[in-house]
Amino acid sequence: MKLGRESLDDLSVGAVFLATGGGGDPYVSYLATQRVLDECGPVELLSVDDLDDDAYVVTIGGVGAPSVSLELLPSVNDAAVALETFEEHVGRKVDAVVSFEVGGGNSMIPIIAAAKKNIPVINGDGMGRALPEAQMMTYPIAGVAPTPAIALDYAGNVATFSTDSTATYERHVRNMAQAMGGMIMTVEHPMTGAQLKKSIVPDTISFSIEIGRILREYRGNAQRIFHPLSEAFAKSLYGNLFHLYTGKVVDYASSVVGGYDIGQAVIEAFDSDAPPLTINVKNEYLVARVGEQVVASVPDLITVLDYETSTPINAERLRYGQRVTVYGVGCPEYYRQPNALAVVAPRCFGFDFDFVPIEELVHAHCALNSEFA
Amino acid sequence: MKLGRESLDDLSVGAVFLATGGGGDPYVSYLATQRVLDECGPVELLSVDDLDDDAYVVTIGGVGAPSVSLELLPSVNDAAVALETFEEHVGRKVDAVVSFEVGGGNSMIPIIAAAKKNIPVINGDGMGRALPEAQMMTYPIAGVAPTPAIALDYAGNVATFSTDSTATYERHVRNMAQAMGGMIMTVEHPMTGAQLKKSIVPDTISFSIEIGRILREYRGNAQRIFHPLSEAFAKSLYGNLFHLYTGKVVDYASSVVGGYDIGQAVIEAFDSDAPPLTINVKNEYLVARVGEQVVASVPDLITVLDYETSTPINAERLRYGQRVTVYGVGCPEYYRQPNALAVVAPRCFGFDFDFVPIEELVHAHCALNSEFA
Repeated sequence: MKLGRESLDDLSVGAVFLATGGGGDPYVSYLATQRVLDECGPVELLSVDDLDDDAYVVTIGGVGAPSVSLELLPSVNDAAVALETFEEHVGRKVDAVVSFEVGGGNSMIPIIAAAKKNIPVINGDGMGRALPEAQMMTYPIAGVAPTPAIALDYAGNVATFSTDSTATYERHVRNMAQAMGGMIMTVEHPMTGAQLKKSIVPDTISFSIEIGRILREYRGNAQRIFHPLSEAFAKSLYGNLFHLYTGKVVDYASSVVGGYDIGQAVIEAFDSDAPPLTINVKNEYLVARVGEQVVASVPDLITVLDYETSTPINAERLRYGQRVTVYGVGCPEYYRQPNALAVVAPRCFGFDFDFVPIEELVHAHCALNSEFA
Repeated sequence: MKLGRESLDDLSVGAVFLATGGGGDPYVSYLATQRVLDECGPVELLSVDDLDDDAYVVTIGGVGAPSVSLELLPSVNDAAVALETFEEHVGRKVDAVVSFEVGGGNSMIPIIAAAKKNIPVINGDGMGRALPEAQMMTYPIAGVAPTPAIALDYAGNVATFSTDSTATYERHVRNMAQAMGGMIMTVEHPMTGAQLKKSIVPDTISFSIEIGRILREYRGNAQRIFHPLSEAFAKSLYGNLFHLYTGKVVDYASSVVGGYDIGQAVIEAFDSDAPPLTINVKNEYLVARVGEQVVASVPDLITVLDYETSTPINAERLRYGQRVTVYGVGCPEYYRQPNALAVVAPRCFGFDFDFVPIEELVHAHCALNSEFA
């Protein structure tokens, strides 16, 4: 299957929906990808099932605080330069690239790299959403080593890493991202086709395009959009979609702490005295509470859409006064297993409660609050 | 000239004197060096004049907060492993090693590497003292590029760096040091023999041994030690030694900030109502003030000795209640040139005054305070 510029609009919007507030701003990445596809032609979007077991695959993407990428713009050449730097570092050619995560930026970067180097990009990613830390990817959870890995900064400076533990690698690469201006491109977690087949969250690029298409076709119909979205999710590996809240952003504060965007949003209902919805952010939307009651939490997905246009809004674009609709949906089953929850449960982010699946949280909340649904 | 274990006592003490509070604690490095010299025999201490112009020389040493090295002890193998990792990274053999700076730790590490690899260590260093940041070394001031460079941590994890600017490299390596536990070993600033000849502060290893010998021979004679020390300095590239203060440490506070030991010591005279001496620390002793008046500042040297034993005391070993003598001495002339002062003057550390040579500061202070001398 070929992926050309005609799919980019839907992909960039759908990827932001699945990225739960993180994954990087889509706009500049979208423009860069469009330009590269115009120049190099469509890329091959390869199903992981069609990948050779002994293919040499790498992950590529941006690491840092997404807010930084709004001002420190990437070059269209960064992805190819990063890939070439990696190939030189390890002394071999890369056969295909795959995303860390779904995201406006991080779904596009592998496509740019693939187009420039004329290799396939794999349909899928290592999170099925976006999450802030490297050890939260499905690849290391499945045992893929993080290095050899390289980081490239805006000025062409390079660092390489060698360590067996992705938690250690995460600490190293995060500090380098801070030292290198707050946002870098990395090539990491090299693996075989066989390893990727066991760890990938499959088909998330084509699913992002489908979500983007629905958002485009039903644009402006806040009442009607839930049904087709919900149908698409029900047939996917995510499961049922839930409407969590509709209202106005009355507060959003964030700052770059330790190389992450850390923040909190408060959303009040338009015309009811329902308690406000609070969302905690670490690059991504992690926990949504109505009043004190948790209604969705990481690793399940929380997404904020513009109320008028249904455009998903990344955390770094949240502003006071925006009218928004907040949806939640379950994460891929992969992340609900104990070995995955060990690195992505709410407690891994400092929250003092265990993970409860969104479907249980929402049903409990509805039982207590009949106006909620 | 051979350097064997019989010189290590004097070297480790003398190096701490010249290191102005920084350069790493000598004790563990001393033990490690002793063991390696016992195992491998004496190393060749090569005068830079006898080095081939086209020899491939690298600097090697510890980077981080010296206080960390009191608890995170280095392995005797780290230096050789770091050197081998570097050789593998660049694909060529290293002909000789040289120190970043004079210091209890950082004078020893190149000796360990040289002994283990059976190559010479150059008599000299890149600071003639210790200073906290890489771009403050004579090598980059003379135009030597910082990379290719590698960092090795306590667990064997490796990072490599590629950048043209030593100020950028300093930011990268400092963040990696923080990510890697607070103290790492780096191999960096590779250069030719010809480049080293133009940039080295020569003969500081043999001079450290001489200072260590004087401190040993006159140990316990706080009254008599000044004269022989002063004679040795007067004949060296440092110039005249000045007695700045004698008294008791009444306050010392420090913390690890941004990967450095940042602190301030206050020393009160034993039995006069002279104003206290205050010393500002960033890994090293940077500025000494009697009351409000600056009596010595970076890049000139400030050294704190135990009053009873004349043992020089590193900043991370300063404690409330210690009775100390504080000396100052001019830095090598190299650091008083405009291109060097551009990176090591007091303003580079955030102090709001220009560099004035210690001989002028002390004379001005003596003219105002007749009891001072």
